[in-house]
Amino acid sequence: MVKNRVANIRQWLSNSGYNAVIVPTNDPHFSEYVAEYWKSREWISGFTGSAGTVVITANEALLWCDSRYFVQSSMELDSELFSVMKIGIDGTPSINEWLNNSLEKGDKVAIDGKLFGVKAYSEMVAQMPNISLVPVSDPFISLWDNRPEIPKTIVRLLNDNDAGESVENKCKRVIAALNLDDNSIYVTMLLDEIAWLLNIRGADVQFNPVVISYAVITNNKTYLFTHKSKFIECDYLELTGKNIEILDYSDFESYISSLENTNVIINSSKFDIYHYNLLQTAGINIIEERGYCGVITSMKAIKNTIELKGINRSMVSDGVSLVKFNMWLERALHENVEVTEFDITRKLHEFRMSCPTFIGDSFNAIVGYKSNGAIVHYSPTAEDSRKITANGFLLMDSGGQYEYGTTDITRTLHLSNPTDKEKTDYTLVLKGNISLAMAVFPSGTCGFQLDILARQHLLRNGLNYMHGTGHGIGHYLNVHEGPQSIRMDYNPVAIVPGMVTSNEPGLYRVREYGIRLENIIECVKHSDSEYGELYKFQTITLYPFDSKCINIGMLTTEERHWLNRYHAKVFDKLSQFLETEERFWLSNKTKAI
Amino acid sequence: MVKNRVANIRQWLSNSGYNAVIVPTNDPHFSEYVAEYWKSREWISGFTGSAGTVVITANEALLWCDSRYFVQSSMELDSELFSVMKIGIDGTPSINEWLNNSLEKGDKVAIDGKLFGVKAYSEMVAQMPNISLVPVSDPFISLWDNRPEIPKTIVRLLNDNDAGESVENKCKRVIAALNLDDNSIYVTMLLDEIAWLLNIRGADVQFNPVVISYAVITNNKTYLFTHKSKFIECDYLELTGKNIEILDYSDFESYISSLENTNVIINSSKFDIYHYNLLQTAGINIIEERGYCGVITSMKAIKNTIELKGINRSMVSDGVSLVKFNMWLERALHENVEVTEFDITRKLHEFRMSCPTFIGDSFNAIVGYKSNGAIVHYSPTAEDSRKITANGFLLMDSGGQYEYGTTDITRTLHLSNPTDKEKTDYTLVLKGNISLAMAVFPSGTCGFQLDILARQHLLRNGLNYMHGTGHGIGHYLNVHEGPQSIRMDYNPVAIVPGMVTSNEPGLYRVREYGIRLENIIECVKHSDSEYGELYKFQTITLYPFDSKCINIGMLTTEERHWLNRYHAKVFDKLSQFLETEERFWLSNKTKAI
Repeated sequence: MVKNRVANIRQWLSNSGYNAVIVPTNDPHFSEYVAEYWKSREWISGFTGSAGTVVITANEALLWCDSRYFVQSSMELDSELFSVMKIGIDGTPSINEWLNNSLEKGDKVAIDGKLFGVKAYSEMVAQMPNISLVPVSDPFISLWDNRPEIPKTIVRLLNDNDAGESVENKCKRVIAALNLDDNSIYVTMLLDEIAWLLNIRGADVQFNPVVISYAVITNNKTYLFTHKSKFIECDYLELTGKNIEILDYSDFESYISSLENTNVIINSSKFDIYHYNLLQTAGINIIEERGYCGVITSMKAIKNTIELKGINRSMVSDGVSLVKFNMWLERALHENVEVTEFDITRKLHEFRMSCPTFIGDSFNAIVGYKSNGAIVHYSPTAEDSRKITANGFLLMDSGGQYEYGTTDITRTLHLSNPTDKEKTDYTLVLKGNISLAMAVFPSGTCGFQLDILARQHLLRNGLNYMHGTGHGIGHYLNVHEGPQSIRMDYNPVAIVPGMVTSNEPGLYRVREYGIRLENIIECVKHSDSEYGELYKFQTITLYPFDSKCINIGMLTTEERHWLNRYHAKVFDKLSQFLETEERFWLSNKTKAI
Repeated sequence: MVKNRVANIRQWLSNSGYNAVIVPTNDPHFSEYVAEYWKSREWISGFTGSAGTVVITANEALLWCDSRYFVQSSMELDSELFSVMKIGIDGTPSINEWLNNSLEKGDKVAIDGKLFGVKAYSEMVAQMPNISLVPVSDPFISLWDNRPEIPKTIVRLLNDNDAGESVENKCKRVIAALNLDDNSIYVTMLLDEIAWLLNIRGADVQFNPVVISYAVITNNKTYLFTHKSKFIECDYLELTGKNIEILDYSDFESYISSLENTNVIINSSKFDIYHYNLLQTAGINIIEERGYCGVITSMKAIKNTIELKGINRSMVSDGVSLVKFNMWLERALHENVEVTEFDITRKLHEFRMSCPTFIGDSFNAIVGYKSNGAIVHYSPTAEDSRKITANGFLLMDSGGQYEYGTTDITRTLHLSNPTDKEKTDYTLVLKGNISLAMAVFPSGTCGFQLDILARQHLLRNGLNYMHGTGHGIGHYLNVHEGPQSIRMDYNPVAIVPGMVTSNEPGLYRVREYGIRLENIIECVKHSDSEYGELYKFQTITLYPFDSKCINIGMLTTEERHWLNRYHAKVFDKLSQFLETEERFWLSNKTKAI
């Protein structure tokens, strides 16, 4: 099957005069999760992983993937057809290096122009002087029989009371920030920007409650390009009543092509080369947006009070579900019911679903038992999942979409009595979490200046974790959003009040276990001091840590007090929504130490 | 007197066709401390402060200075002649704004081109579109009668055993790093770069043991432009024997003007506009050096083992002197001898001078008693200095130049019994110092990522300090050197083994007291971990903190252990050089808590 597909695309290459094609994992909206329609890389290769890039030439077919997928790719790919290029292994060339060196000078390499940003495209061109990189229309339109459709799920409108700001006001703010006049327009292709701006939510993409669309903001009107069938009539009328013109998704290309005498402001790392070329052909004046990220992303990151209220409410919903889940788990293990990692992902989902405002998971839950917890991106599947028994560490990273907020929480439980080493490790990670949670910092401080607080206790013991400490999180939107982050990497975005970020230090003992402790933290004002405004964090996730894993002697008095205050708050916020037995269980788990 | 001088420069302005002149505080080598010869800003205005810029037009004379000098400038300046422009006060225009707005369009403003870097000059030009900024030769050559001479102190050669690396090898490394070929040369104007590169030291500039000179590095020879009279004959022969050609300081200009068919590599923020214009006139191809700072500065920052050994030895010398000083101070206060802040600066100098390898102070000592300690750049003078009595905090920031290293240490002593608030404040600052001292971090980490460790304990209490936490320090060279720093500000230079940096958190209670605790820390390797190389710091300053100011209950076990280990090390390293009574005194001061 894959063999035929590869043969067909080679035929297409030869017919069209191309020497190779690059098939990335992306959609035209630079989404983290892509709809089935855009899973052409999976279709052409058979590799189902969530990241990886395929290159096909007349004689070769290759998949570039990182260490997460070395095993999976070798299992899923037809080894007679595909070679795996292992990213990060010494001697593996990058895609650009490989193409630049393997092809003949002047060879043409096709890409679906809608899947590559202008900036990324320019960098590729600069890195492959030998070849000619040609953005084309999606070649799979003609090649892929029975291709899934572009999703057309019903759009849901958030009313102003739930969004905290009207669409009109948001558009006004964008127009003001960009100084849009009668002769300039702003285009965004980012689904979460569009969802936030227009107070719409959808179910087009798994985990991300977005609506597949493009948006164009002008001085006096906003255009939304999406499928009209996605609206129930009254919502359609309501939205169009807000000065929003709804055009068909497929109209976007002709809209772009027909622009005249207009300045188009874009963010070239989030604007595709296909439409960019159309603008250039039309002789349009393209203006690169100033600033580190798009203006809507910047605005969206700072939650308003209604959004924050909703997010805090979602933390209660999530905490209540997790109490019920955890009691179920304890009982199941006690009664020797067979439970696998995959069962746990299902149960997490089920318990969350009992909350009537739950929409769906906010990402594919990571449940790693014992050594699987040390595999940072491990997700169990129905077919391949380890059985849980009443001992060792169980790492669970999961989250939910609620009508009023998005959650993301990691807890690591010990299923019997932790050893001293396990307690030390757990406590080092916890100390990192608490250090960041207790941080106070002057206005202007960026995440990369705070990251060391979460790692310092591990580092002093020669330990570390090879992932970031924190990512932004949406309000009933994407679980990962920018622009702020808390990482070692330079990112010049200051953390300011209203930003909601994760706090997730970890420790991974290969072939033993993984520990990650993740809470969501909200930046709030600490004080107006003589040194300027100071900010701090409030931990808003509501679920206890596993006290029996804590080496209390390793905590400072301040850390112990923080933990006791946090646990008291968890009990205080959740107990009113719990049954007597659950309340008793939680009061035990949140006892002061 | 100043009146005549201002009148004369106005005459010069008018004769030469200029409408204004800017007189900065600088020398042609971008030095922190400038020799008397270049103190033209002081000569023309009467203001003796170490920073400030004068602007003189036909009708106005102004001094721009920051808050450190608001009082001093108003006392020293003739108020009928000069206005003070207070930097940092709302409504004060910058020099560029003022000139751009106060002068007529097209007016000409003269500057001594040797005192302005190419980059700074370009920025000024961009910010003053209305006026024409003209780099000229030093106008004070003709105006300043009895001007001090350019210093011509004897040059001292460090032998390879003291420098740890031969001149030949250093030059070879620079040539390799810059890829210098027969057609390209590298020019440096920085006195500490030249001193390090050629293993020479001088006494031309107060506090900085440098030799006023320019250097040109070529593929096969290095040119040193300085006064030949500065060398004793055997040293002259030794140096020229190392493939160094010594030309006169005044020959530099003609050397630059006579270059032909050569690429000149420069660092445009440390290369003056006067010589740059000469290169341009000569049609020379000027190449901007890559990287964040000059290649020699980068190399110099990473001390070799001999330099580190010398620096550690200087810490012993300094510690021994400070023990003797502190015992004297205690005795003097006990015996009610009158002691002022200024007396203390003299005594610090005297006790250091009793060490035969002491060269001089490494900077103007800051000794601030009680509320004077809260004035960050306060330096007492013979005329204006507070009397010390046996109570309250005394902040002392001082350092020495030794033949084998440079020191910089701040201690804050309490002269009787500290109050609870004083102890809390002292302990918060100490906790910051210890947190940074205990830091462990992955290779690639920069100072701005570590800075929060030193501030975090203060910040959690709504406190902070408005200065950096750490600066690089030279090996028997400048007490402030780059490129690394530990500050909130972005500075992309990673802290790596061999770098020697200060660690100086503080807290300033205006009108009450100041506390600063400064040690020098050396970056060393911590371990090769599975997370890559990890680094840590070693505190190399050897002098006890004031234990009676510590609220022990506020220290974590780790911090207390660190402090006890540090005090044990101080005693261990110093005691062998002390008399019995001193040893007894120190053993008391370094007792475990």
